[in-house]
Amino acid sequence: MRTVIVTNPPRADLAQVGTLADYGVATVHEALGRSGLLGPHLRPIQDGARIGGTAVTVLCWPGDNLMIHAAIEQCQPGDVLVVTTTSPCSDGLFGELFATALQHRGVRGLVTGTGVRDVTDLRAMNFPVWSAAVSAQGTVKATAGSVNVPIVLGGQTIHPGDAILADDDGVMVVPRSHIDRALRSSQARIEKEQASREAFRNGQLGLDRYNLRSRLTELGVEYVTAEDYRS
Amino acid sequence: MRTVIVTNPPRADLAQVGTLADYGVATVHEALGRSGLLGPHLRPIQDGARIGGTAVTVLCWPGDNLMIHAAIEQCQPGDVLVVTTTSPCSDGLFGELFATALQHRGVRGLVTGTGVRDVTDLRAMNFPVWSAAVSAQGTVKATAGSVNVPIVLGGQTIHPGDAILADDDGVMVVPRSHIDRALRSSQARIEKEQASREAFRNGQLGLDRYNLRSRLTELGVEYVTAEDYRS
Amino acid sequence: MRTVIVTNPPRADLAQVGTLADYGVATVHEALGRSGLLGPHLRPIQDGARIGGTAVTVLCWPGDNLMIHAAIEQCQPGDVLVVTTTSPCSDGLFGELFATALQHRGVRGLVTGTGVRDVTDLRAMNFPVWSAAVSAQGTVKATAGSVNVPIVLGGQTIHPGDAILADDDGVMVVPRSHIDRALRSSQARIEKEQASREAFRNGQLGLDRYNLRSRLTELGVEYVTAEDYRS
Amino acid sequence: MRTVIVTNPPRADLAQVGTLADYGVATVHEALGRSGLLGPHLRPIQDGARIGGTAVTVLCWPGDNLMIHAAIEQCQPGDVLVVTTTSPCSDGLFGELFATALQHRGVRGLVTGTGVRDVTDLRAMNFPVWSAAVSAQGTVKATAGSVNVPIVLGGQTIHPGDAILADDDGVMVVPRSHIDRALRSSQARIEKEQASREAFRNGQLGLDRYNLRSRLTELGVEYVTAEDYRS
Amino acid sequence: MRTVIVTNPPRADLAQVGTLADYGVATVHEALGRSGLLGPHLRPIQDGARIGGTAVTVLCWPGDNLMIHAAIEQCQPGDVLVVTTTSPCSDGLFGELFATALQHRGVRGLVTGTGVRDVTDLRAMNFPVWSAAVSAQGTVKATAGSVNVPIVLGGQTIHPGDAILADDDGVMVVPRSHIDRALRSSQARIEKEQASREAFRNGQLGLDRYNLRSRLTELGVEYVTAEDYRS
Amino acid sequence: MRTVIVTNPPRADLAQVGTLADYGVATVHEALGRSGLLGPHLRPIQDGARIGGTAVTVLCWPGDNLMIHAAIEQCQPGDVLVVTTTSPCSDGLFGELFATALQHRGVRGLVTGTGVRDVTDLRAMNFPVWSAAVSAQGTVKATAGSVNVPIVLGGQTIHPGDAILADDDGVMVVPRSHIDRALRSSQARIEKEQASREAFRNGQLGLDRYNLRSRLTELGVEYVTAEDYRS
Repeated sequence: MRTVIVTNPPRADLAQVGTLADYGVATVHEALGRSGLLGPHLRPIQDGARIGGTAVTVLCWPGDNLMIHAAIEQCQPGDVLVVTTTSPCSDGLFGELFATALQHRGVRGLVTGTGVRDVTDLRAMNFPVWSAAVSAQGTVKATAGSVNVPIVLGGQTIHPGDAILADDDGVMVVPRSHIDRALRSSQARIEKEQASREAFRNGQLGLDRYNLRSRLTELGVEYVTAEDYRS
Repeated sequence: MRTVIVTNPPRADLAQVGTLADYGVATVHEALGRSGLLGPHLRPIQDGARIGGTAVTVLCWPGDNLMIHAAIEQCQPGDVLVVTTTSPCSDGLFGELFATALQHRGVRGLVTGTGVRDVTDLRAMNFPVWSAAVSAQGTVKATAGSVNVPIVLGGQTIHPGDAILADDDGVMVVPRSHIDRALRSSQARIEKEQASREAFRNGQLGLDRYNLRSRLTELGVEYVTAEDYRS
Repeated sequence: MRTVIVTNPPRADLAQVGTLADYGVATVHEALGRSGLLGPHLRPIQDGARIGGTAVTVLCWPGDNLMIHAAIEQCQPGDVLVVTTTSPCSDGLFGELFATALQHRGVRGLVTGTGVRDVTDLRAMNFPVWSAAVSAQGTVKATAGSVNVPIVLGGQTIHPGDAILADDDGVMVVPRSHIDRALRSSQARIEKEQASREAFRNGQLGLDRYNLRSRLTELGVEYVTAEDYRS
Repeated sequence: MRTVIVTNPPRADLAQVGTLADYGVATVHEALGRSGLLGPHLRPIQDGARIGGTAVTVLCWPGDNLMIHAAIEQCQPGDVLVVTTTSPCSDGLFGELFATALQHRGVRGLVTGTGVRDVTDLRAMNFPVWSAAVSAQGTVKATAGSVNVPIVLGGQTIHPGDAILADDDGVMVVPRSHIDRALRSSQARIEKEQASREAFRNGQLGLDRYNLRSRLTELGVEYVTAEDYRS
Repeated sequence: MRTVIVTNPPRADLAQVGTLADYGVATVHEALGRSGLLGPHLRPIQDGARIGGTAVTVLCWPGDNLMIHAAIEQCQPGDVLVVTTTSPCSDGLFGELFATALQHRGVRGLVTGTGVRDVTDLRAMNFPVWSAAVSAQGTVKATAGSVNVPIVLGGQTIHPGDAILADDDGVMVVPRSHIDRALRSSQARIEKEQASREAFRNGQLGLDRYNLRSRLTELGVEYVTAEDYRS
Repeated sequence: MRTVIVTNPPRADLAQVGTLADYGVATVHEALGRSGLLGPHLRPIQDGARIGGTAVTVLCWPGDNLMIHAAIEQCQPGDVLVVTTTSPCSDGLFGELFATALQHRGVRGLVTGTGVRDVTDLRAMNFPVWSAAVSAQGTVKATAGSVNVPIVLGGQTIHPGDAILADDDGVMVVPRSHIDRALRSSQARIEKEQASREAFRNGQLGLDRYNLRSRLTELGVEYVTAEDYRS
């Protein structure tokens, strides 16, 4: 593995990313044909945060946060730091000192496959974090890794500059080249969902709205009374 | 596996279920001889909710929420939707559109062995949910399953119409035929616990209150000083 | 396994333990050379609590809380109850009746490798708890165990009387004999971190502050442009 | 929970169960519409064993094997012992002394959601076991449970007398009332699979044999060259 | 997510891949700077198999093996089928009928993030498999996916045509463009390891062979006698 | 954490340790009152090995095997290497080169909370290993740790020189000071088990042999016929 720090990767357009973030992870994920979601083990350490930004990616050695230091210099306003390790690691690679430095640079949040610490402080600072664990376990700065190379986290490949969206539902990546499509499809989905919401509030059933009765019949699903089922 | 939708299963009495819900999961579980609890992996997405209702059961294929659509039509006021899959699945089979439809029908909450999404909205709507995961991962509507058949979730068999209780401590099922007993035993337990609470506030020890000193002796537990233990 | 209840083990000095608790788990863990942290699976049931106290240790049989009753009698003001089982157990060995008795005795909180129940009540009582699970599953009082013997929890050996610190970042143990060193090192670390915090707020980079640029070079990390990296 | 030992439950016909066992778990599971499989965490401690028998069910307290002693007396030739606990437990509730007693009674094997021990001996004795863990952790005989009541294991409800099939692919239950159907459907499936096997050996594709090309088209799956996909 | 079947992706040179397979996963992984390893949860269902081949990638919906049928047609002699799902799935998507068809086409083995079934048969056929689970749970053929698109499995991005190596130590991917480098570095590593093996057989210590004594000193590691350590 | 290499710790008597190993883990664990077992996640990479030896303990940083090099020099004939990390790590810290060096020194096997690699070779060499994972993931030699200090692994505290026993049932530690007791109790248990084995072969029931019928009655367990239970 060549260990490099890639400078100034092209980034997604921040205005577009911001619009996607407003749509929310669940909507954009559906709009892109149900792709891009990082797995459910990445959880927010706070309630109600919703962010979007451009990925600065970090690949660390387990138990080692050296490359996060290197990554901070590569960050710009609007970025989201995305951290993974070469093998599974729950240690607290990140805490409030890093968050202080990142807030100074206009970074919008952290997504990490590791643990984080100082969560009381991070919440108080309003620096939003999605992580796989909370752990005070400290780290060393001894082994090389990379910044702004493609990484895998939560079952997704993330390239530097991709859009990262995160809210209470989790985290997703939108590849830079899919953002236009994501915007169009998400807007269409929002409108469709608003109409469904109204219909459901008025008592329509999804069975009717989505024409699912015929599908149930085709699939051989039968309606039976409780009495008939028992016998 | 025959795939059926069972209509109008007999349901537990809602007034009785409501009383059990007030007692809480921990109390009723004890009162029934420590039975009926769904495992600790089913967690609330909100703090402080406490519900009781009658189960409408749903058996879905993994990655597929078709049968939830079918189940909604079977729901009545006072029901709780209980969802499982034929094999483990963390996807977000349920979100706020479903919750909107269920609130219209008077359904009191959701218990699911899968993931859920739109949790920001679900919390804002006060639609209580207990799930095994939060995940925005979307689903298809392609494969048959069943509604209102007996299902297994969290290590318990749940029949449609059984009482479902859920609060911060988790979720439990009370079979319809055990509800009278549950009510009697829970009431007795509440009274006994209230007396113990008072005693403990006044400094009595459980060792004395429950006559445990003799049991420790019978079991061969010895009291030793720290000095004696070290040597 | 001899089953014993050890009375009056020597305890760490409560004033010193209180000072360590104010420093917080992440700081003291680092100050002690990154040692003593219990694993990230022990999570608080509440946000924002921060406690320190002296360990009363309890070793229970799975599904059995008899020895917690015996342990309560051994508790003094300033203690923290620390519970583990002879094999993994997620049951709710602890609830609000125990907390009532412990609050009467001035106990500051609970750390347990098992589950707990009555969490709504425990939060309302302000009795702080760190546990591996929330579960209403009840227990019996049938099998012997020990109180105030050395136990293993979260990958750490804990002796009775050791300092236990717990906050949003998790739980740690400070052996009684390390407390003087922990105090000195933590104070030094606090001062160093405060200086770093100021520097980071003013835009200094960790790369410069910690002299990491030369380390990156020694380790062979290269800076490349995005264009060069692609080719 | 009432704790009972149910004597002489009706059992599935052993000759029929033996025929199902010969078909194997994967075949019978498919033949029954993909139902009845216990989850993949139940693994054989040996390679190549294949058994079928009638369930004697045991519900134990975690860390306690008292009820296995009670269950042995209820066993007949052709039975399979099926053990679960009221909450998760990896302890070694079962070893070669139990296996010795069971072999004497003609019991065909063990399925347990707990751990087992003495695996060197069990393999040497040719007493087949499927378990969730291997663990030497010993147990007590202190707490009541039940024998021959319905239990839940691996996500399935198992009644005493049901057919239990187990081989390298795992374990399944066939409810007593489904055995006739299982036999008919399995036989049909065996024949169909044999024909497919021959066809595949001769190079036919499943796409053609199962008419899947049209399904791919309906679902919108496109064929593209590698060159077109890249651009 | 566009669902496509990509035809004839460029493949790594089979002779080169065969040489890498002979070196083994542990060696090639080290030779590439410790990159490319799929996580330890992918385990062989047999002992002693060692294969190398070119990846045909398959992305399935959970509980659905439709796209494996489509993938078989894309397979050539020397390929290895690599299967993942859009969200976690332990079902048995693959069994001996598929293996029969793949052996006919000269496919060398299967790597899957799901479960497999018919393992008795697969072992008897000498069709090697690495999977995340063994499960007889059957699947449907209802939902679209893709063949020969980049997928993520075990924390690695795999492109069609990449080299896949698998043995008792697990599975790794070597990107097509890294194969020349992998060959050179692996050969160098083999020679170095052979020399070390001889040295170790003759009693040399790694401390001396790799010059680690000075590193220990620099890192502040002290040698102390057992007596001094205790005090 | 002070990082030290402790030289020549006192070791348990090898002849005694060998006798304990012959008794086996399950027997000695019971004989010591069911204590000392490392958890079931430590599994052998081979079938049928049974070893006993004296612990040389190693505490490594995750992803780093520097201290194993240091530990080898401390090994004597009859030792067992016992490795853990400061936080969870599944990497392959150990392979056949280490085993070659250890066999030269007469070391009897490895127990590690991490992964191992080169398992084909390790099996061929007859170097027995118990580990938490198999993983080819390589490591660095960059961070200090300790040798022959007390460590925690699998929920047990292990001191250098303690007896380590390992077989198909798992791994256990016998503290040096408990070995005499372990020998006496194990011998008694062996004799008792042999008598029970004979009795069970002749059809006696554990219910009678261990006087459990009265316990069942005391605990309120009732015998009911299947007919009575149903109603």
